[in-house]
Amino acid sequence: MTKCSMCGETFAIGDYEALGKHYYAYAEESDVAHVMWLNRYVTRKKTENARTLAELLARYFDLGQTNGSLEKWIRLRFIDRFYGSRPHPFVVALQHPSRATLLGYVFEHQHFLRQWVRSCSYIVAKTDQTDVTMYELDNINTEFGGMGTERPAHYELLLKMGESLGIARQKILSTPPLPDTASSIRAWDDMARTEHWVETMAAMHGLELIADRTLRQDGATMSYFDPAILAPANRDVTEATKNFLREGYEADVGHSKEALELVEKYARELTLTENVQATFLKSIDVFHRYLMARLVRSEEFESA
Amino acid sequence: MTKCSMCGETFAIGDYEALGKHYYAYAEESDVAHVMWLNRYVTRKKTENARTLAELLARYFDLGQTNGSLEKWIRLRFIDRFYGSRPHPFVVALQHPSRATLLGYVFEHQHFLRQWVRSCSYIVAKTDQTDVTMYELDNINTEFGGMGTERPAHYELLLKMGESLGIARQKILSTPPLPDTASSIRAWDDMARTEHWVETMAAMHGLELIADRTLRQDGATMSYFDPAILAPANRDVTEATKNFLREGYEADVGHSKEALELVEKYARELTLTENVQATFLKSIDVFHRYLMARLVRSEEFESA
Repeated sequence: MTKCSMCGETFAIGDYEALGKHYYAYAEESDVAHVMWLNRYVTRKKTENARTLAELLARYFDLGQTNGSLEKWIRLRFIDRFYGSRPHPFVVALQHPSRATLLGYVFEHQHFLRQWVRSCSYIVAKTDQTDVTMYELDNINTEFGGMGTERPAHYELLLKMGESLGIARQKILSTPPLPDTASSIRAWDDMARTEHWVETMAAMHGLELIADRTLRQDGATMSYFDPAILAPANRDVTEATKNFLREGYEADVGHSKEALELVEKYARELTLTENVQATFLKSIDVFHRYLMARLVRSEEFESA
Repeated sequence: MTKCSMCGETFAIGDYEALGKHYYAYAEESDVAHVMWLNRYVTRKKTENARTLAELLARYFDLGQTNGSLEKWIRLRFIDRFYGSRPHPFVVALQHPSRATLLGYVFEHQHFLRQWVRSCSYIVAKTDQTDVTMYELDNINTEFGGMGTERPAHYELLLKMGESLGIARQKILSTPPLPDTASSIRAWDDMARTEHWVETMAAMHGLELIADRTLRQDGATMSYFDPAILAPANRDVTEATKNFLREGYEADVGHSKEALELVEKYARELTLTENVQATFLKSIDVFHRYLMARLVRSEEFESA
C-alpha cells in the first residue's frame, strides 16, 4: 500500500494522486507535521496544487532512480537525512567526540538498545521465514545477549565506555531517558507492535546505516566518526570508547546490508515495498529526534 | 484478575462468586467447552447451584494448598493433567517408543518449536525486565538458534532424530502440521500476542514440565520416558533419538524451574497470579490436544 509516513493513512498501491491530495489538504490546513515532512523530504516550496504534489511524491518514491533497488533507495534517503549537506549535529559532534558527547551517547543509548531488542523480538514473533528468524536471533544476541560473557554485546560495551568516562554503571542504569528518547522509544515500539514485520525490519535495520562506512561511496559527506580515533596511539578517547566504536564500525556494514537484502526480498514477495518506504521514513524521523536527545543529554556534562 | 480459562472473560480479583455464576450459567446451557473444562479440572458431577460451584472453584485456585507457591500449584496441576491416574496417551507410548511414535513426534514437533520461538519472542518484545529478557534469549537460542552450529539446538536434534529414522530432512520440513497441531499453534500465538508476558511465560514454560523428571517427587505416576532408553548399550532406539531425548531430560528441569520462579515473582509484583493460573490451564488444554496430534501422525508410520 501507499502510506502516509506521518499519520499512517493508507491508499491503493501506487496511488500517488490520493497521497498528493492527502498531503495537499493537510498543507492547506497548515498541519505542522505533514508540512514539515514535505519540507524535509519532497519540496521546500508550496506546490500550486495536489496534482503537482502527487507528481513530486511519485518521483520521490520511484525506485526507477535506483534501478529498482529498494536497498539503494533506503541508503540514499538515509544519506539525505543524516549525511547530506547538513549532517546531523550529533554526527558532527562525534567526529572528534568530547567526554560530554560520549556520555550523552551512553545515557540515552542504553534505552535505545533495550528497545532495539524488543522491536527485533517482534520481528521474530511475527515472521514465518526461517532466514529472518535466524538473522534476528543472531542480531539480538550481538546487541544484547552477550552481557557478562567473553564476547560482550554492544550493550555491555556501551556501559563499559560509560564507566571508562568516570560514571558508575549503577548511575547509568538508573537514569531514565530524556523525554525525546522516551517518545522515540514509544514510537518504535508502536511500529513494531502494529506494522508488518518486513516494515519493522526496515525501520530498525535501516538505522544501522548510521555506522555504515560504505555510505561514503554513495555520496555521504562524512562518516559516523573519524576512524583515526580507533588507532592504538590515539589518547583522545578511552580504550573502552574505542572498543565500543570499533564494534559498530566493523560489524554494522555487512549486518545492515544483510537485513536490507531480506527486507527487499520479502517486500517484493509480499507487495509491501511502499509500506516499507513509508515506515522507513517515519523511523528515520524518529531517529533524528533521538540523536538530538543524545546531544541534549551531553550538555549536562559540558564543563562550565 | 480472575479469568475464565475457556473464553477469557474477566472478573475482579478473587471474585469466585462471579466466576462460579459464569460457569454455572454456561453449564445450564450445556456449553460443551465450559462443561468439559469443569469436568476436567473441578468436578465431574453437576453442582446444585452457582454458589457451590464458586466454592469448588475458589478451592481449586487457592494457593493455600501449596503454602502460597504458584510454582508448586502449577506443577501439581500439570501432574493431574498429564501424569495422574490416566497419563496422557502420548506419554504412555513414549515409555518404550516405536519408530512410528518417534516420527509422529518429529513431524508435529518441528511446528511446535517454531511457534515456541515466536511465543517466547513476544515475551522479549513486551517485557521491561532484564532478567526475563536474558532468560528468554538464552532459552530461544537453546531451542532454535544453534541450527548448524557445534552445539545443535533442540530443533536440529529433532530433525536429526527424524533422519536417523529414515526420513529425509526436506520431507520433514515440507510436511504441514495436522489440523490439531495447526489450531494449537494458533491458540498459543493468540495467547502470546494478546496476554501479558507473565502469562505467556507460564503458558509456554509450564509445558516444559512434561520432561521434568522431578515431577515424580510431587506424585507423577511415570516420567516422560524410561531413562533406561538413554543407556549406551540400548539398541532399541537410534543414537540420534537418544541425543534428542537426552537434551530435554538433562536441560528442562532447571530450565522450567527458573522460568516458573520468574513467573511467580512477577505475577506477585504485578498482581497477575489469577491471570497466570487461568492462562496456564488454557495452555495445558491446548498442549493435551497437541500431544494427541503426535499420536495421530504416528499412525501413518505404523507397520501394517
